[in-house]
Amino acid sequence: MTDLILKNVRPMGGALTDLAIHDRIFVENSDPAAEVIDCGGRILIPGLVEAHTHLDKSLLGLPWYRNEVGPRLIDKITNEREVKVSLGLDPQVQSERQAILSVSHGTTHIRSHVDVDTHHGLAGIEGVMATREKLAGIVDIEIVAFPQSSMMPRPGTVELMDEALALGADVVGGIDPCGIERDPKGHLDAVFRLAEKHGKPIDIHLHERDAMGGFSMEEIIARTRAHGMQGKVAISHAFCLGSPDRAYVADLQAQLADERIHILTTAPASAPVPLVRELRAAGILTGAGSDGIRDTWGPYGNADMLERAMFIGLRNNLRRDDEVELALDICTYGGAAIMEAEGYGLGLGCRADCVLVEGETLAEAVALRAKRKLVLKGGRVVARDGACILEAP
Amino acid sequence: MTDLILKNVRPMGGALTDLAIHDRIFVENSDPAAEVIDCGGRILIPGLVEAHTHLDKSLLGLPWYRNEVGPRLIDKITNEREVKVSLGLDPQVQSERQAILSVSHGTTHIRSHVDVDTHHGLAGIEGVMATREKLAGIVDIEIVAFPQSSMMPRPGTVELMDEALALGADVVGGIDPCGIERDPKGHLDAVFRLAEKHGKPIDIHLHERDAMGGFSMEEIIARTRAHGMQGKVAISHAFCLGSPDRAYVADLQAQLADERIHILTTAPASAPVPLVRELRAAGILTGAGSDGIRDTWGPYGNADMLERAMFIGLRNNLRRDDEVELALDICTYGGAAIMEAEGYGLGLGCRADCVLVEGETLAEAVALRAKRKLVLKGGRVVARDGACILEAP
Repeated sequence: MTDLILKNVRPMGGALTDLAIHDRIFVENSDPAAEVIDCGGRILIPGLVEAHTHLDKSLLGLPWYRNEVGPRLIDKITNEREVKVSLGLDPQVQSERQAILSVSHGTTHIRSHVDVDTHHGLAGIEGVMATREKLAGIVDIEIVAFPQSSMMPRPGTVELMDEALALGADVVGGIDPCGIERDPKGHLDAVFRLAEKHGKPIDIHLHERDAMGGFSMEEIIARTRAHGMQGKVAISHAFCLGSPDRAYVADLQAQLADERIHILTTAPASAPVPLVRELRAAGILTGAGSDGIRDTWGPYGNADMLERAMFIGLRNNLRRDDEVELALDICTYGGAAIMEAEGYGLGLGCRADCVLVEGETLAEAVALRAKRKLVLKGGRVVARDGACILEAP
Repeated sequence: MTDLILKNVRPMGGALTDLAIHDRIFVENSDPAAEVIDCGGRILIPGLVEAHTHLDKSLLGLPWYRNEVGPRLIDKITNEREVKVSLGLDPQVQSERQAILSVSHGTTHIRSHVDVDTHHGLAGIEGVMATREKLAGIVDIEIVAFPQSSMMPRPGTVELMDEALALGADVVGGIDPCGIERDPKGHLDAVFRLAEKHGKPIDIHLHERDAMGGFSMEEIIARTRAHGMQGKVAISHAFCLGSPDRAYVADLQAQLADERIHILTTAPASAPVPLVRELRAAGILTGAGSDGIRDTWGPYGNADMLERAMFIGLRNNLRRDDEVELALDICTYGGAAIMEAEGYGLGLGCRADCVLVEGETLAEAVALRAKRKLVLKGGRVVARDGACILEAP
């Protein structure tokens, strides 16, 4: 791999400079024969981090799916499990399509939940693992074994989760211990047992609201403490932290901070959400993601984490420049820290995973969401002018 | 103006057909010598309607404004009034910039609130009126004389509102009768008196929440009834209709429907909002708008009403195709009906104000928000491939 110099670049919107890359890493000086890319004074940020999505679910590239699904969470889960086959959803192809779209928008790291259930077995895990291998060097993909259809009410699922983790899934997933599992003790004991057995971190979907969500969260906190898993547990969605009972929420947040439990949000406009300024103040590491993208759950989503930063800003009423920068920080450093992405950042010695964005300031970059001029992964150009170097299948 | 044929077009996502335009109007047959545009099977919708924005406030085209403004509504109002001059904000130039951006996204009708205050007098109204004249035939602009800085606490404002309406403003604006004006009776009496004197409709900004907003709304309802202004009054934002007290809200909505009072929403993600499905069920005409676009209030906004339809969908949890179509209907027919746009629609005899959008279905068009291929205003091409035929100043 030849050396590279990014000329006329403004790291994080700061002063104009040149950055040298050698052997995938930002270095002080590079080979005089290095390739030079003139960045035209654009802002450079580290690669965007898609820290909560579902690569195996997307319908990208397929004919339009007319959504006539019922309003409850369980309607969407049941519908999806049943129509996956008739729609011809191939988890390898779909995950590759979505991951390539992500790269085109400057995402260099993806954490994807992947369904594990008794209907489809490990087909999703195997498909996304194949994509992970195919896109190695283009984007890092972390796989969460995700019991979307529940574990406790569906015998055989815990065993499949175990197999998924043995096969190569990186993270143990979980889902609403009360609302979906109807057995919070059984579910959470199983999740933490799997994590302990495989030595892997945890990321639990928690849509439960208010007191019910708070109860499940307390159970997660207690097990994190008991298992000594501080820093290794994340809660996705955490709608209960958007409860109007702010004193109760403050107490929950203090406990999350104590056990170094992370929060992942998609900042949905129609659900209560954790308030990112409060999480920051409480010292809770926060990342973000797109959630499902154009799937049987809903038609929206474009895998653009700069747009997700805007959604976080809109949902949290972030208007001041420093506040918008917080939203962007969540979509970069926050997610990267939760994923423990190695050598993440723009400093010397960091891995050259980075994106050129348009705008005079970081806040303008978020507000504009313009096509990304250049995306590097490990010092290699992986997207230019909004298009990935790989074509989607 | 030569005749035009739109070939291979799918009106509202329906079957492929050709549409003929003669003298600005959709007709059955056109001149055999008509110009033909092949629409490549794309969906045609009527022009998008930006029914709530602030053309005079935008900072588009100016250097980035670093926002360090305080959190309260009054902080934003005071800051804006004071920095307008130092920022060199020319209401004519700024309104032209924003209107041209709107046209590029397929908007054919704009209702703009324009500040009237004792600090800047009628400069805003005159500026936006100049833009309205300059862009005649490109986009229709309706002007609301808007007492942003309040009327009652600032003597001389009512007289300026009166002058603005005599000069050519189309609609009487108003603002939080309690929260900002601190004098609901005084404010609303003045607003309805101005409307009666000038024979013009009303559009009142109502950010007030819960019971306070409900009280102000009841006062608006009572005056609409007393003045016989059914069908001529709109309430913008109407956050109080997002109150958790749904029985009280249902009662308010029934009264709004009785007096044919319209609602305009921007579907903000961080405030309580009227629920568009409920408004539809109650028989309340609903339109939408972008609100301020990249101004001293906040950095967001791109004047794309197809994106606004997505925001309405996200905020109201609209996932099914028929629900997403409702969001789009609000951004087209809903706003047009509130603005009483003449000959709006795609039927024979309607004015040929329309947009080609990408996607297999209307829901996909909203989810994609792709560059608009073609925008017609009165049968004339005003934008192509996402660019207006006029360049912004």
